[in-house]
Amino acid sequence: MKIDVTFSATNLDELQLRDKNVVVIDVLRSSTTVVTALANGAREIIPVSNIESAVKISASLLGDVTVRGGERNGKMIQGFNLGNSPLEYTEGAVKGKSIIYCTTNGSVAMNKCRHARNMAVAAFINISKVAEFMAQVNDEFLIICAGNTTVSHGFSMEDAVCAGMLIHKVQEEQQQQVEFTDTSTAALSLYRTHGRSILKMLKNTDHGKYLASIGFDEDLKACAKVDSVPVLPMLVGTSVKLPKEDQRAPDAEIPAVATPNS
Amino acid sequence: MKIDVTFSATNLDELQLRDKNVVVIDVLRSSTTVVTALANGAREIIPVSNIESAVKISASLLGDVTVRGGERNGKMIQGFNLGNSPLEYTEGAVKGKSIIYCTTNGSVAMNKCRHARNMAVAAFINISKVAEFMAQVNDEFLIICAGNTTVSHGFSMEDAVCAGMLIHKVQEEQQQQVEFTDTSTAALSLYRTHGRSILKMLKNTDHGKYLASIGFDEDLKACAKVDSVPVLPMLVGTSVKLPKEDQRAPDAEIPAVATPNS
Repeated sequence: MKIDVTFSATNLDELQLRDKNVVVIDVLRSSTTVVTALANGAREIIPVSNIESAVKISASLLGDVTVRGGERNGKMIQGFNLGNSPLEYTEGAVKGKSIIYCTTNGSVAMNKCRHARNMAVAAFINISKVAEFMAQVNDEFLIICAGNTTVSHGFSMEDAVCAGMLIHKVQEEQQQQVEFTDTSTAALSLYRTHGRSILKMLKNTDHGKYLASIGFDEDLKACAKVDSVPVLPMLVGTSVKLPKEDQRAPDAEIPAVATPNS
Repeated sequence: MKIDVTFSATNLDELQLRDKNVVVIDVLRSSTTVVTALANGAREIIPVSNIESAVKISASLLGDVTVRGGERNGKMIQGFNLGNSPLEYTEGAVKGKSIIYCTTNGSVAMNKCRHARNMAVAAFINISKVAEFMAQVNDEFLIICAGNTTVSHGFSMEDAVCAGMLIHKVQEEQQQQVEFTDTSTAALSLYRTHGRSILKMLKNTDHGKYLASIGFDEDLKACAKVDSVPVLPMLVGTSVKLPKEDQRAPDAEIPAVATPNS
């Protein structure tokens, strides 16, 4: 199977992704947060591309089942209910809720995938689950790193390393023959060089340093726990959900794995 | 000194580069071709961002001292005098000429730098010369990889590896203390992984494979010869030239190093 990677979603057009198999990665923190929220019983995540859309959509939905989550400059948006820390998306905050979700890079990338054939959300915390899914589909994939448009010219090391680990797992654990491009070759190399300690790598990235500087050190630990929340969020129509078999009954206990910080 | 890298010039705005120290890299083939043309006695290279500009500018210049060079899809543009192979830019073709230069990624990136404080053109063939220059300036630098907008979502492995080798040389040979970003860290890692044989690396890249497929195998060899054409092209106003001490007198012999294929 051919695996291509884009290190930034900025120049992607949604029509370019039509009928493609895609995986969206935004390790710090959107994809980690989406995985966590759904594992903690959120009904769905509705990724939007800007605050205006978030406000419009929430006006058309029922207030008691809807929350608005997201960030600008890493901090909660005024008038929203939740920021973008995975640690905020607890069962108490999200169970049974529809989350309208607006972040600088991650939700924008997810929003662009609405005409894709398959779109899965990947982070370190659910990476083996996504590798299994890719092997099952066994067809060409594009891994979209949401990247960092604020400081790193679109590229972010943590997303590239996560893409590389995903390719490594598809190749080594799922035993798939992978056809490479420049970007998938680069991602795999960066994983091999920087993937030995994910937490150490996150602490050294541009965005990891920024998040630590505004008080989110604990988020880095949550985002670094490989396979701690093994669920597979997929885009269905315009919202990201878990497949039926992964959804918890409304009264089910939270499994121990459902918080990346546990 | 802080060294930042951008893996693509697509989203750069020329005003963002105002007063910055920048290096432009487009290994396959624009930066290699510009270095070669100037070493072979071209008076200046005028990088433009599109064919329309090239035509307009050439209409205002004298025909006998002006040539138009460049490519679309790797091939010579209709009505132009030269394509984009460094091997075409011989003394016979370029000596004393102003070259209006239009390529898909490289000339566009160079054109965006006209308000930069310093802009040097780097390829493998002149890399140590550029590293020396960076150490002399000894200030913050942005290395602009022209990248590959056609197939690799902006990124190209050969430009990233060249940026990494440049950083390596600044750090190790010029003994500068370098402050890194996500992208400069990634570039250095990619150089360390893929920089052992430059020719082998070029042959494995998306664009290297494409160029070989349309008959430019020999260009890859020319582009891979580290330090074979040790001159320092710099942007002066709107054209790229060699510093006075590197310019050859109109009747001077071509030094043996002046063709990367020699």
